[in-house]
Amino acid sequence: MSTNSKIGLSCLQTLPIFGDVEGNVAELERQISQAAAGGATIIVAPELCTTGYVFQSREEAFALAEKVDGPSGRRLGELARDLGIYLVFGFAERDGQRLYNSGALLGPEGLIGRYRKLHLWDEEALYFEPGDLGVPVFHTPLGRIALLICYDIWFPEVWRLASLGGADLVCVSTNWVPISGQKEDRPPMANLLCMTGAHQNGVWVAAANRVGVERGQPFIGRSIIVEPAGWPIGEASADRSERIEGRIDLSAARKGRSWGRFNHLLRDRRTDVYGRIVA
Amino acid sequence: MSTNSKIGLSCLQTLPIFGDVEGNVAELERQISQAAAGGATIIVAPELCTTGYVFQSREEAFALAEKVDGPSGRRLGELARDLGIYLVFGFAERDGQRLYNSGALLGPEGLIGRYRKLHLWDEEALYFEPGDLGVPVFHTPLGRIALLICYDIWFPEVWRLASLGGADLVCVSTNWVPISGQKEDRPPMANLLCMTGAHQNGVWVAAANRVGVERGQPFIGRSIIVEPAGWPIGEASADRSERIEGRIDLSAARKGRSWGRFNHLLRDRRTDVYGRIVA
Repeated sequence: MSTNSKIGLSCLQTLPIFGDVEGNVAELERQISQAAAGGATIIVAPELCTTGYVFQSREEAFALAEKVDGPSGRRLGELARDLGIYLVFGFAERDGQRLYNSGALLGPEGLIGRYRKLHLWDEEALYFEPGDLGVPVFHTPLGRIALLICYDIWFPEVWRLASLGGADLVCVSTNWVPISGQKEDRPPMANLLCMTGAHQNGVWVAAANRVGVERGQPFIGRSIIVEPAGWPIGEASADRSERIEGRIDLSAARKGRSWGRFNHLLRDRRTDVYGRIVA
Repeated sequence: MSTNSKIGLSCLQTLPIFGDVEGNVAELERQISQAAAGGATIIVAPELCTTGYVFQSREEAFALAEKVDGPSGRRLGELARDLGIYLVFGFAERDGQRLYNSGALLGPEGLIGRYRKLHLWDEEALYFEPGDLGVPVFHTPLGRIALLICYDIWFPEVWRLASLGGADLVCVSTNWVPISGQKEDRPPMANLLCMTGAHQNGVWVAAANRVGVERGQPFIGRSIIVEPAGWPIGEASADRSERIEGRIDLSAARKGRSWGRFNHLLRDRRTDVYGRIVA
């Protein structure tokens, strides 16, 4: 990883059509190609962006799910190779008889790694298994990248696992929905979670959400790119399919964790008293 | 704890005079009495509110520090008893030859408990010992209360310890200072940390900061009261000594952690994969 080099990062805020995997992947290919043409080297797409989100039965989810190297993964992998980009996207993963709400990181060199959503939201528990891969941090030529999915960001523990694992960038593939109590005159709580997650851990955050209403379920958009200090450098609308972009220096994440002569965001941790967190 | 009863909560945003312990306590007494007269039953005062913050030597800090039942603690304890209120305040604690940046919870019944700042900020490391009492949660007739101090809130682990310990309310005695990278058109990051800390853990938060400039060090005010959903219900200015108030239902904290049929903010935690947080 070269120091101080800036790389292009893009979050795709998409509007998938439920069940139209072929069409959704084609649209992703179009948007990824545009983002790459615009200078993006790392591109993040939403949770379950190939299938849509609102499954109505286990059978339906099973029928739409794919292996990571299934047709959708292969098409997107070929595109990542051809464009020389790193792509994070969320998909319904079938592994034998099991389904996971998964993310994959594809690079020019092929599949770099997978993540399986640890914290399932609402009826996802009816279709998916809880993630069983922990919070892996993937090494790339650009820096170290972790993946989280949607409700995961409500759990400060997974931000910590990413940061302690060395992540410079946390990519959040998400399908954020409206939540109870949200104030209309404030940013979505999901955005604030990205901001404090970045700040407390000294990581870049790239969160790609979807928009639209699917089977009666609205999604809130507001994709966001956050610098390690915790402030947004790119923000999307609530309702448009669009792309947000930033030029980021992944090494800034590591530098930013040191605060003056005495403090460091990770080394100041009092692991001697944190035991109950995992008890 | 009765359900749905609302109690008055007040945060005192003060301007202590460095080293004038007698005068600072007298001013605290005045403000506490006013808050109680205004209906407050729980009152939170800032970090090191009896001494001021910017010590220049260990000897100076040692000379100003007191035992929890020293003159300042006794005076404030008598006031809590006389007014029938619960008071959280920060003070420089002397315990033998050791100093701690501490908080105390006083009630009508006397001293309920102490907290010692776990994460020391900047030159505090020259004067104080790191806290050695963990994150205790104190049971009161009103509900369960935890104390944190200033830089502690940068560590999501201590919010979790408070919440897992059953806290309904987290009182933050603080001396927040300007931090690098803060955006002028955004709330202070410290406020956002209170909001996401409340939201992720389902706790009320009452943070009392100081104002003014002491020995060249400015403080940012912006004391805040946050509901368990994460939204402010009271916010102070950046520069005035003043009081903010809210009427709160502590039991709402416990109800709010359950989200629908499938989710609960604490029970959804994946302790099976969080091990590295304390490793």
